[in-house]
Amino acid sequence: MATAGKVIKCRAAVAWEPTAPLMMEEIEVAPSQEGEIQIKVVATGVCHTDLYHLFEGKDKCGFPSVLGHEGAGVVESVGPGVTDFKPGDKAIPLFLSQCGECKFCKCPKTNLCDRNNRTIFHIIFHPLTVINQIAVAKIDDDAPLDRVCLLGCSISTGYGAAVNTAGVIPGSVCAVFGLGAVGLAAVMGCKNAGASHIFAVDINEQIFEKAKIFGATDFLNPKAYNKPISEVLSEMTSGGVDFSLECVGNTEVMRTALESCVKVWGVCVLVGWTNVKDISARPIQLISGKTWKRSLFGGFKSKDSLTKLVLKARTLLQNWLIDYMTGKIKLDEFITHKMSLEQVNNAVNLMKTGQWNIFSLTSFCRIL
Amino acid sequence: MATAGKVIKCRAAVAWEPTAPLMMEEIEVAPSQEGEIQIKVVATGVCHTDLYHLFEGKDKCGFPSVLGHEGAGVVESVGPGVTDFKPGDKAIPLFLSQCGECKFCKCPKTNLCDRNNRTIFHIIFHPLTVINQIAVAKIDDDAPLDRVCLLGCSISTGYGAAVNTAGVIPGSVCAVFGLGAVGLAAVMGCKNAGASHIFAVDINEQIFEKAKIFGATDFLNPKAYNKPISEVLSEMTSGGVDFSLECVGNTEVMRTALESCVKVWGVCVLVGWTNVKDISARPIQLISGKTWKRSLFGGFKSKDSLTKLVLKARTLLQNWLIDYMTGKIKLDEFITHKMSLEQVNNAVNLMKTGQWNIFSLTSFCRIL
Ligand SMILES: NC(=O)c1ccc[n+]([C@@H]2O[C@H](COP(=O)([O-])OP(=O)(O)OC[C@H]3O[C@@H](n4cnc5c(N)ncnc54)[C@H](O)[C@@H]3O)[C@@H](O)[C@H]2O)c1
Ligand SMILES: NC(=O)c1ccc[n+]([C@@H]2O[C@H](COP(=O)([O-])OP(=O)(O)OC[C@H]3O[C@@H](n4cnc5c(N)ncnc54)[C@H](O)[C@@H]3O)[C@@H](O)[C@H]2O)c1
Ligand SMILES: [Zn+2]
Ligand SMILES: [Zn+2]
Ligand SMILES: [Zn+2]
Ligand SMILES: [Zn+2]
Repeated sequence: MATAGKVIKCRAAVAWEPTAPLMMEEIEVAPSQEGEIQIKVVATGVCHTDLYHLFEGKDKCGFPSVLGHEGAGVVESVGPGVTDFKPGDKAIPLFLSQCGECKFCKCPKTNLCDRNNRTIFHIIFHPLTVINQIAVAKIDDDAPLDRVCLLGCSISTGYGAAVNTAGVIPGSVCAVFGLGAVGLAAVMGCKNAGASHIFAVDINEQIFEKAKIFGATDFLNPKAYNKPISEVLSEMTSGGVDFSLECVGNTEVMRTALESCVKVWGVCVLVGWTNVKDISARPIQLISGKTWKRSLFGGFKSKDSLTKLVLKARTLLQNWLIDYMTGKIKLDEFITHKMSLEQVNNAVNLMKTGQWNIFSLTSFCRIL
Repeated sequence: MATAGKVIKCRAAVAWEPTAPLMMEEIEVAPSQEGEIQIKVVATGVCHTDLYHLFEGKDKCGFPSVLGHEGAGVVESVGPGVTDFKPGDKAIPLFLSQCGECKFCKCPKTNLCDRNNRTIFHIIFHPLTVINQIAVAKIDDDAPLDRVCLLGCSISTGYGAAVNTAGVIPGSVCAVFGLGAVGLAAVMGCKNAGASHIFAVDINEQIFEKAKIFGATDFLNPKAYNKPISEVLSEMTSGGVDFSLECVGNTEVMRTALESCVKVWGVCVLVGWTNVKDISARPIQLISGKTWKRSLFGGFKSKDSLTKLVLKARTLLQNWLIDYMTGKIKLDEFITHKMSLEQVNNAVNLMKTGQWNIFSLTSFCRIL
């Protein structure tokens, strides 16, 4: 490739300070080093974690910074020692690496990787990005990049939190708190795992209609009750739900989600992201079997699962694209807006002010 | 029996108000009702939970009240409908019932029982007690009551928290916080489950010698370090312990115990009792597999397990008494003092002021 080994100039959406709009700037992209590949990002979604890194987190990204972590693209060039990719391959960058060699990668109980570093959170609102191959999944040549980009974060996260981390079982009663893209995907996961009742809980009632499409059976707005929603749920389910998933990123809701679970076998999964405040509970909430755990990227081993899920779409039955093609997995339903990279501030504002119903969006990057 | 069906007068140690000494008083014991049995308590231990109910808890017992919940005795008489017991049987009253019929009793995942009521916490500093048969375990005729009474709470609680709730596995690295009777039993459980390292953590260094007898390999006083003991443990174990057990009843220590676990597969079990304050943690502590759970009565199904553990001592290999007789389970080592019921205030004071090394004691009730 003509670009291989060269510094390339391109335009990216740069965050200069926490509250200011992102600025379109010309930046320089370094050539790939050992093990790295350059990816031309074609499509990207917007996830609440981007806002978190901009505005909310204690672990705020340094500034200036390029955000975005939910993209899909085409390999532009590969550095020395790259074995998994060649130019032209379709690929999804991962915010969670899978080196395949560390103690965590070898452990089937986890999807963490010891070689993970989070710089990936700051590279995709940007048309050309350089990443180590351990944090990229190869995907099928026919994969529609403007939809499968959502698998890079929110949909895999919510869906996997239900089917992997919670381990929802047929006939169970579930509650999903927060119905952004992550929560809606969690509803879809509960539904596909065979839940008999799925309570969709959000303070924005406009979203309930969409939640119904993904499989929710009951709809609750906590603001409409003058008692805690955990009590309401407990009464409606004689003691609490079997599985609850927090997809908001609010420590009070995390407590509520735990308190909404039935004792003994109730499982509460924390999907929402925050590291600013503590989660708290009365110790008795954890008595005898109730489980409180976190899910990261839906518990999926990142590289394996996305490659399997997308690349082998037509040969493996258990995968997203077949599921997508047969309607079992919905992707199109998550997309509310399509915008160019230049419109990224509109996307951020829509999410920030909660003015849209569905909080995932595909914004096409302009390829230089 | 001459006493069956009659109101009996006897002397008991009565708590009249939170801080005052217990008073020896004559009280009346009601005859057994349907399903109930009267037990002549012969020996009883003192557990920190007694202090909690007297002084610390929000769920303080009402006053006047008779405390104690770690006893063993002989059945005096049985009420109508009692099928499991006859007068003269040896028995251990249980603070956790096992009716055998409710949804929890039928679920192998839990030892809770829907018919449990906690009045059992207030009946054993007392020579004659009346309890429903669902909360009494029958034990072997030869069981030494002055030692097996400890199985009624602290030893089963600590031992089971390690072997059942935590599920300690061979070769694992464990940490036990708090080395009262419960913590020492947890150390013994870790040891018998095959742990390779057992860190014993207490602010009272005098207790370390005893902890060594039960199998602890390393000894840490948090006060001797100028950084958090979770950091010390993390450095000593390259990342944290596999299993941690909190046996203090302090929400700060509960947080520390969680933070001391290795990420991904670390399991933190809360054994200490408190319902006055919240437990708190940064959400990231629960990420990807780390587990935070509570243990009640060591996760044992109460009636079954004590009967099996004690009654069938000579026929079952997996049981306390055989284990006790072969030295695998230590009981004698827990006993530091023997006192009469009249000396109960000495026992309470020794525990309250932390002046003794080992906090379990067998105080013989005087049989009227
Ligand atoms: N664990 C992971 O791997 C991972 C990955 C991606 C995103 N996340 C996190 O998941 C969370 C959801 O992401 P998203 O993009 O779907 O966010 P979003 O902002 O699109 O959706 C959040 C939803 O929660 C609702 N909500 C707000 N307060 C509420 C309350 N008190 N009770 C009920 N509902 C409430 C909002 O109305 C909104 O519908 C965020 O915290 C994000 O950072 C975690
Ligand atoms: N979950 C259950 O089923 C159950 C049953 C019985 C007892 N308990 C609870 O278990 C706990 C222990 O009971 P016990 O009878 O062994 O108590 P104890 O008072 O005999 O022992 C507590 C030990 O903790 C140590 N300690 C105090 N503060 C500490 C700190 N900050 N760090 C480290 N060590 C510290 C003390 O020095 C003491 O050795 C109590 O909270 C009790 O209520 C729970
Ligand atoms: Zn995301
Ligand atoms: Zn790895
Ligand atoms: Zn006790
Ligand atoms: Zn029961």
